[in-house]
Amino acid sequence: MTVPDSSQQPFRFPVAARYAGMESSPLKDIFALAAREDVVSFAGGIPDPALFALEDVTSCYDWVLSHQGHRALQYGVSEGERELREQAARRLSRDLPTEASQIRVTSGSQEGLFVIAQALLEPGDVVLVESPTYLAAVQAFSVHGARIIGVDTDDDGVIAEALEEAIRTHHPRMVYLIPTFQNPTGRTMPVARREAVAEVLRRTDVPLVEDDPYGALSFSGTTWAPIASLPGMGERTILLNSMSKLMSPGVRIGWMRAEGPVLDTLAVAKAAISMQSSVVDQLTVARYLETADLDAHVARVSAVYRERRDAMASAIAPVLPEGAHVTRPEGGMFLWAALGEGYDAQAMLADAVEAGVAYLPGWSFFADHADRSTMRLSFVTHSPAVIEEAIARLGEVIARHRAA
Amino acid sequence: MTVPDSSQQPFRFPVAARYAGMESSPLKDIFALAAREDVVSFAGGIPDPALFALEDVTSCYDWVLSHQGHRALQYGVSEGERELREQAARRLSRDLPTEASQIRVTSGSQEGLFVIAQALLEPGDVVLVESPTYLAAVQAFSVHGARIIGVDTDDDGVIAEALEEAIRTHHPRMVYLIPTFQNPTGRTMPVARREAVAEVLRRTDVPLVEDDPYGALSFSGTTWAPIASLPGMGERTILLNSMSKLMSPGVRIGWMRAEGPVLDTLAVAKAAISMQSSVVDQLTVARYLETADLDAHVARVSAVYRERRDAMASAIAPVLPEGAHVTRPEGGMFLWAALGEGYDAQAMLADAVEAGVAYLPGWSFFADHADRSTMRLSFVTHSPAVIEEAIARLGEVIARHRAA
Repeated sequence: MTVPDSSQQPFRFPVAARYAGMESSPLKDIFALAAREDVVSFAGGIPDPALFALEDVTSCYDWVLSHQGHRALQYGVSEGERELREQAARRLSRDLPTEASQIRVTSGSQEGLFVIAQALLEPGDVVLVESPTYLAAVQAFSVHGARIIGVDTDDDGVIAEALEEAIRTHHPRMVYLIPTFQNPTGRTMPVARREAVAEVLRRTDVPLVEDDPYGALSFSGTTWAPIASLPGMGERTILLNSMSKLMSPGVRIGWMRAEGPVLDTLAVAKAAISMQSSVVDQLTVARYLETADLDAHVARVSAVYRERRDAMASAIAPVLPEGAHVTRPEGGMFLWAALGEGYDAQAMLADAVEAGVAYLPGWSFFADHADRSTMRLSFVTHSPAVIEEAIARLGEVIARHRAA
Repeated sequence: MTVPDSSQQPFRFPVAARYAGMESSPLKDIFALAAREDVVSFAGGIPDPALFALEDVTSCYDWVLSHQGHRALQYGVSEGERELREQAARRLSRDLPTEASQIRVTSGSQEGLFVIAQALLEPGDVVLVESPTYLAAVQAFSVHGARIIGVDTDDDGVIAEALEEAIRTHHPRMVYLIPTFQNPTGRTMPVARREAVAEVLRRTDVPLVEDDPYGALSFSGTTWAPIASLPGMGERTILLNSMSKLMSPGVRIGWMRAEGPVLDTLAVAKAAISMQSSVVDQLTVARYLETADLDAHVARVSAVYRERRDAMASAIAPVLPEGAHVTRPEGGMFLWAALGEGYDAQAMLADAVEAGVAYLPGWSFFADHADRSTMRLSFVTHSPAVIEEAIARLGEVIARHRAA
C-alpha cells in the first residue's frame, strides 16, 4: 500500500473482506425489477402507506416541536429518551415486567440486530437461526464473522430437538428466532413449542435473541407472549421490537429489552455506532404511544391485512402445483410457498416479472441448504382485487414452468 | 457454553472482546459530573439550544409531513433520499464538484465514521490520526480491531514529514484528519499544510478520511476548502459532513462524499448497520437546506460563538501557569489548553467540579503518548459573563494545583 503510485491508475479504496464482492447483490437487482411501474410486487415487506396514521403522527411531531423543541433538536443519550423507554416498558409489561432502564432505543430493528452483533459476536462464533430466517439479520451477524447455521423448522417453527442437537454440535454464541408471524414464512410458534425451546435454552445456557417486529399484527386478535416472558428466560434473552410495522418504517425507531450488565454493553455499542437515535423521532414516537391508541390503529391495519391474506391465500391455492406447500399466516405480512421438486423460484422470476408480478425467491432466506423452490409473498401492499389478478398471472407462469 | 447450568448463578451474557471492560467509561463519569446543576460545564461540545433555528426547522417538518407525508413515513433507500443528496452535493460543489450520486446519507457523522470503519478496516489495520484527535472516531475504528497511531501536530495541524514517516513505518490502511477547527484543539490547517499533506498522501497512495463537521463555523468569515478538493484527492478521500453543529444534533443527519466503487460498499455497510436513516428527518433537512438560509443562520451562530471564544480566551490567558499553551481557534467550538509539566488535568477535575466548573481532560483525545496536562474547553454553550466567572474559578483551582 505504501508503494509510490507513479502510474495513472485510478485510485481504488481497499475494502474490508467482510464486504468484498458485496458491491451489488442479487436482491438489490430483484427489488429494482420489482419496482417497475408495470409490475405488481409482493417482494418487499412494504406497509400500505394509505394505512399510515399520518394525521396522528403529524400532530405528535407538531406537539414535540412546539412543547419540547429545544430538547428535540439537542443531543440526547445513547440509551434513548426517557419518555420513549417508559412507553416501551409499559407495552412490554403486558407480558413481561419491564422497567424503562431495561430498554435500549435503536434506529429501527436493523440497528438493534447490528448493535447486538457488535456487542456479542466474535469472528468464528456460531449463530443458530431458523431455516429459513430473516436475511438482513443474517447479514448483520455475518459481517461480524459469525457462522450462521440454520436449524430445521416445521409448521410450528423451530424444532426443539433439532435446536438442542445443533447446540450440542455447534456450541453457538446465541440463537436468533422470530417466534411470531415469522419473516419469511409467516409461521408462529405455539405456546408448547415456545416452552420446549425455552427449556432447551435454559438447560444448555445459550442466550436468545428474540425478534418481534410483527407480533401485534394479529388477524385473530390472539397475541403471543414472547419467549422472553417464560420462566428464567428474561435474563437470557434480548428482545427486539420495532415501530416500523406498527406505525411507520420511515421514522426508524425500535428498541431492545434486556437485563443485567449486557445493557451497558449494548449502550456502549450503540454509542460507537451512531451516538444516539434521532431525538425528534424518539420524542414523537413516545408522544404517539402516550396519546394515540396504537392498539386500535393496529387492529384497523390488521383487519385490512387479514382481507389481503385471505385474498392471496384463496388465489394462490388453486394455482400451486400438486405437492406444493403454502403457509396461512395468522398475522404479519408474509406468506411462504414451497413449489416443490423441480421448481426454481429464482429462475422463474424473470418470467413472472415479464407477466407483471414479482415475489422474493426464497433461497436468500436460508443460511444453508436452501430450498430453491420457495418464494416469499408479501400480502400487505395491494388490495384484494390487485392481489387476485396478479396471483392469477403468477399461476400462469407456474403452469408454464410445470410444463417445462 | 453448553455445560448444563444446574446452579442458581444469574445468567451472564457473553460479551465480545471489543467491548470487554467498556461497560462504563471515565468519560461517562465525567459527563455525569459535568451535568450537575451547580456546575458550569465546558466539557461537552453542546450547541446553545437558544441558537437553534427552531421555527425554521419546525416549519420544514410541517411542510414535509403535509406535502410528502406518506413518503416520509415509508421505507427509503440506504443511499439516502434524493433531495437531501442533491442539497448536500450543491453545498459541497462550492469547493469540490460533487454529484448527488456521490453522497451517502448517515445518521450523523458518528454513523458515517462507523460505516467507513465497517467498509474498510480489517483487524490489525493501522489508522493514523492527529495527536490529539476526536475520541469517538478512535472508538469507531478501535472496535474494528484497528491499531490507532497518533501523528505529531503543531499549531498548523498534522506535520507532513511526521505523517510521511508514520506511513513508511506503519503502512496504514487510512489516515483520519479533521483539518478545520479541529476537535479537540480548535486548530486549522493552512492551505500550504493541506497541500503538503495531500502531496504525501498522493505519493504514498494512502486513503484519507476527512472529517469536516465544524468548517462552516468560521469567526473570520474565511472558510477552508477540504483537502479532498486538492488535485487528485477527490478519488482518494471520504469526506464527512454533519448537520449536527450547523442545524441540530438531535436530528442526527450527516453525509459522506466519495468517488468510485467504494460508494457501493458504503451503501451496503450502511444497509447492514441501520438499513437507512429516518426518512422524515432526511426530507426535513433537505427542505431546510433548500428553503432556509443556512449560511445566514451559521453566520449568526458564529458571531455569538466568536464573542464566547473571545471571552474564554481573554479569561483563561491570565490564569494559566507560565509555560502553558492555549489555542485561539478561528472557528468551531473548542479551545485547548496544555498546562505543562507537573499538571494532571484528570487529577485536577474533582477540585474543579467542586469549584463549580468542568472541562474534558485531554488525555482521552490521544491515541497514544497522552499529554495529561491538557484540557478541552467548549466555549459555545454559555454566555460571556458565565464563561468569565467560571474560568476565574478554574483559575483558582489551577493556582492551588500550582502551589501543590
